[in-house]
Amino acid sequence: MTALRQVLRDRRVDGFVVPRADEFQGEMVPPGSERLAWLTGFTGSAGMAVILADRAVLFVDGRYTLQARTQVDPAHYEIRHLTDEPPEEWLAANLPKKARLGLDPWLHTPNQAARLRRGGLRAGAELVALEDNPLDSLWTDRPAPPASPVVPHAIGFAGESAADKRARLAAALSANGVDAAFLGAPDSVAWLLNLRGNDVPFTPLALTFAVLNADASVDLIVDEGRLSDETRRHLGDGVRVRRPSDLGSVLDGLGPKGKRVQVDRDAAPAWVWHRLKQAGAEIVEDADPCALPKARKNATEIQGFRNAHLRDGVAMVRFLAWFAEAAPAGGLTERDAIDRLEAFRAASDMYRGPSFETIAGAGPNGAIVHYRCTPESNRAIERGTLFLLDSGGQYLDGTTDVTRTLAVGEPEARMRRHFTLVLKGHIALARARFPAGTTGPRLDAIARQPLWDAGLDFDHGTGHGIGSYLGVHEGPARINKSTNNISLEPGMVFSDEPGFYLAGAYGIRIENLIAVERLENQGEGGRNFLGFETLTLVPIDLSLVDVALLTADEAAWLDAYHARVRDLLSPHVEGRDAAWLAAATRPLAEVRS
Amino acid sequence: MTALRQVLRDRRVDGFVVPRADEFQGEMVPPGSERLAWLTGFTGSAGMAVILADRAVLFVDGRYTLQARTQVDPAHYEIRHLTDEPPEEWLAANLPKKARLGLDPWLHTPNQAARLRRGGLRAGAELVALEDNPLDSLWTDRPAPPASPVVPHAIGFAGESAADKRARLAAALSANGVDAAFLGAPDSVAWLLNLRGNDVPFTPLALTFAVLNADASVDLIVDEGRLSDETRRHLGDGVRVRRPSDLGSVLDGLGPKGKRVQVDRDAAPAWVWHRLKQAGAEIVEDADPCALPKARKNATEIQGFRNAHLRDGVAMVRFLAWFAEAAPAGGLTERDAIDRLEAFRAASDMYRGPSFETIAGAGPNGAIVHYRCTPESNRAIERGTLFLLDSGGQYLDGTTDVTRTLAVGEPEARMRRHFTLVLKGHIALARARFPAGTTGPRLDAIARQPLWDAGLDFDHGTGHGIGSYLGVHEGPARINKSTNNISLEPGMVFSDEPGFYLAGAYGIRIENLIAVERLENQGEGGRNFLGFETLTLVPIDLSLVDVALLTADEAAWLDAYHARVRDLLSPHVEGRDAAWLAAATRPLAEVRS
Repeated sequence: MTALRQVLRDRRVDGFVVPRADEFQGEMVPPGSERLAWLTGFTGSAGMAVILADRAVLFVDGRYTLQARTQVDPAHYEIRHLTDEPPEEWLAANLPKKARLGLDPWLHTPNQAARLRRGGLRAGAELVALEDNPLDSLWTDRPAPPASPVVPHAIGFAGESAADKRARLAAALSANGVDAAFLGAPDSVAWLLNLRGNDVPFTPLALTFAVLNADASVDLIVDEGRLSDETRRHLGDGVRVRRPSDLGSVLDGLGPKGKRVQVDRDAAPAWVWHRLKQAGAEIVEDADPCALPKARKNATEIQGFRNAHLRDGVAMVRFLAWFAEAAPAGGLTERDAIDRLEAFRAASDMYRGPSFETIAGAGPNGAIVHYRCTPESNRAIERGTLFLLDSGGQYLDGTTDVTRTLAVGEPEARMRRHFTLVLKGHIALARARFPAGTTGPRLDAIARQPLWDAGLDFDHGTGHGIGSYLGVHEGPARINKSTNNISLEPGMVFSDEPGFYLAGAYGIRIENLIAVERLENQGEGGRNFLGFETLTLVPIDLSLVDVALLTADEAAWLDAYHARVRDLLSPHVEGRDAAWLAAATRPLAEVRS
Repeated sequence: MTALRQVLRDRRVDGFVVPRADEFQGEMVPPGSERLAWLTGFTGSAGMAVILADRAVLFVDGRYTLQARTQVDPAHYEIRHLTDEPPEEWLAANLPKKARLGLDPWLHTPNQAARLRRGGLRAGAELVALEDNPLDSLWTDRPAPPASPVVPHAIGFAGESAADKRARLAAALSANGVDAAFLGAPDSVAWLLNLRGNDVPFTPLALTFAVLNADASVDLIVDEGRLSDETRRHLGDGVRVRRPSDLGSVLDGLGPKGKRVQVDRDAAPAWVWHRLKQAGAEIVEDADPCALPKARKNATEIQGFRNAHLRDGVAMVRFLAWFAEAAPAGGLTERDAIDRLEAFRAASDMYRGPSFETIAGAGPNGAIVHYRCTPESNRAIERGTLFLLDSGGQYLDGTTDVTRTLAVGEPEARMRRHFTLVLKGHIALARARFPAGTTGPRLDAIARQPLWDAGLDFDHGTGHGIGSYLGVHEGPARINKSTNNISLEPGMVFSDEPGFYLAGAYGIRIENLIAVERLENQGEGGRNFLGFETLTLVPIDLSLVDVALLTADEAAWLDAYHARVRDLLSPHVEGRDAAWLAAATRPLAEVRS
């Protein structure tokens, strides 16, 4: 801290901003980019520190206030609420007049940087983009950036060749009079070029930038050494491979000709923005051109999701059959469950690993929405409690994300009531019909109404988009309470995950993946109506269903879902697993209420 | 047209924009400001003309395309779709390079003017704000601007004194470091100063601007002659009355001191914006500071709504009792019904007139969402058809807006089915419970789901805000499919008006006004939950209800609503009306399905 402040003085700035972010603005940040954690000790997935000469502030959101207090030295950092008091507001109120606050233009998007700049302006202070990051000179044992092999994603999984994607998107750019688009989101580059990698945990991509030109050619910014001959052949002539150190000159090349370059103000480093401006390019502010095409899964990708969910369902059934026997006997911990589930998934040769860090919450841990099991928190799974298990897999043909809430032994009446209210919300969204053009936020309340009617709610979104063997969280559409104005379109895949959390007691969440589809039967109105196909194939714990609270339609949905799960999975399981599956998917008529 | 083009040449512009708007951007435009109608003959409530040297274009929305073709000479105007091809897009594609297109800066908000300017820029053309409007020099018999008496709105109806409102809002401005706010919306001025007038039909206000200063004083821009001594006393010392011709100097007065002046880019003339800039004021872009406080009705205003709805209910019941007898006998027209309803409302001495032009749609006319009865369209009300009646009253203590759909004789099965689907949606919203912080667009789908499930929908919003003895349409919150991010708050009053329209056959809409209220029973979650109180007291036609389609909860809601209507209204009606009311509000158990 003292050393950093010295460096800042040498740089002639009065402070420095340290976000929890790397150049690629992804959820997953490689170790060498975990500057916030290195500096402050705070390891949460979101946060920002502001270091001034005489004070330092760490901003974290509600999920992390407790964790921050334990990880960060209060003698050095004041802890503030990231959303209640956004950094830009704090800067406006606390920056000394005429102060020069430094930031690393690689670690902020143009919009993020602009917000901080406006906050500074209100205080009469200035934000200064620094040439390089002052922390890096102090972080002597900083891990090297990831450099995993970049491999092709087979057409058999992608469903459309990279050349066709390039041509399709380039045509759209030309139609808008745009000469090139900077792609700052690695998952966009991975989708466009049908490439995958292993630079970060859970998401199978390489941290790369690219420029898509209106002639359908692409400048891919990546170290040559990471590409095998096969990958080079896969990329073909239309893709020029450029060194990361050449990004500047690639951008400069767009300038002199006064080209119109499309940049997403929320998905590019501010550094790129300013370099393009300096180079003389005319910047067209628009969304990442890959975002929507990537979200609209093609028929091959949807079939891949179905195939992946069949495998994932088998693994989950084998786990659940084991759990049903082992858990009530006692002695299991959250970690035991996590490891066992991973082993069942790993049995498939299409499996490439978890799609996120499994959330396994026993009893009260289930009520912590963003809980992660640590050696300290690892809790025993006890009779009479609920066990919340949220996990997913990366398969070559699709990504899964499923949450089940399991009763250990005999559940209390209120557990069954709360579970059934959540289930009613889940079913309401799964069977919703809606006109083309409807946005996700307009459907969000449908999954909450049964809880709202009881004066209950949950503090997270109802549904997030998901990638095809890519990120488990994918935009641009989502089903939550934002003002997101992206319409749901056929092929988009979302989670349907309402929940309820009783602090200190238990957490309930029921999550399936659902794919938007155009309905065969359009009804009498002659309009274009859409609905959902449920992809996830995992039984829902009938011992937690209070049948009396379900309408006839809801009960019919659950019976039909379980019949489908049974029919599709039973050919792939045997013995104890098959017997468990048959019982777990029996009709509600056979469930005593 | 030739004359106008000559005037434009004299002004050295290549064209001129004529919006259907006056300086106050209200729904209601006084005759002397109906420039679009005077120039083109088009009398619709929304539209814009662009006059160029060699061509002229009229932009109208879907409601008015047919009407425009009959009213406008196709030899002079091309007709375009206002929303499919917004004027700014058309300008970008059609304006000649280097063209100078004139606009009247009084008739466009800063945002509207900026959109047109951006469109022009894309064509390499320029938009020029003209000193005065070229049409006015040609419009020799132009009606004088309205100058109705400006009268106080009694504290007994307003519930808060103008002085208290000024102090409350001024404190908020100061807290934001703002020195003054320009109020460009006449209903905001009317609310802030507890003033009413009669400048335009249906909305009881005077077309005035005002400036609210951070010291709680107000500069009211209005002709002295319109104020009685009583009104001057009512205004008191805190309000300076300034001539409309002095607006410029009032704004100039804010400049030199470099004051921070708040302006709503969607509720002020561009002229004001530029004058403030010229004067040296620092403009703070923010919403009209009166918009939210005005929308949050206080206890006195809510009670006023209840009282007004009691009177309105009595008038409606007397009308409906008459209609039930007269309509099946035949010979009635839409106009007969409109006049008779008006007579029943006029019986109340608190009544000041309709709150909008009554929509009375017999048979197929009911399917035209924005239908207005004209001598040509006036249709006979026939047996076996539906009659849609959407009307409202301005009462000193509140504004009403109610729609009922009535069966004339025996309705067809599909009429009853469609009516019941609409009713289910109406009930779903009326009984909705939701957490504080929920926005209107998130509730909109709740009223559509029963229709969506049948593949049906309606092409208008579900609910609009409404004023207290002010505009029948009031912002800033609304319940529709926009991305409006204003939370519903206790005291806000909305319409709940789902519908269904079968072109060429019939229209169905069921509309009550509902007031947001904090729920007494907050449920088990310990959160702050909100719900609605239904204000409208008018029976819903039971002959159109297919009881078999209602859930037990929905049937219970309808029975409870009718019981309340009966209990509250029966003391005020007698004879035939009382008998009709008793029958019209009988329990569903007595309705044969």
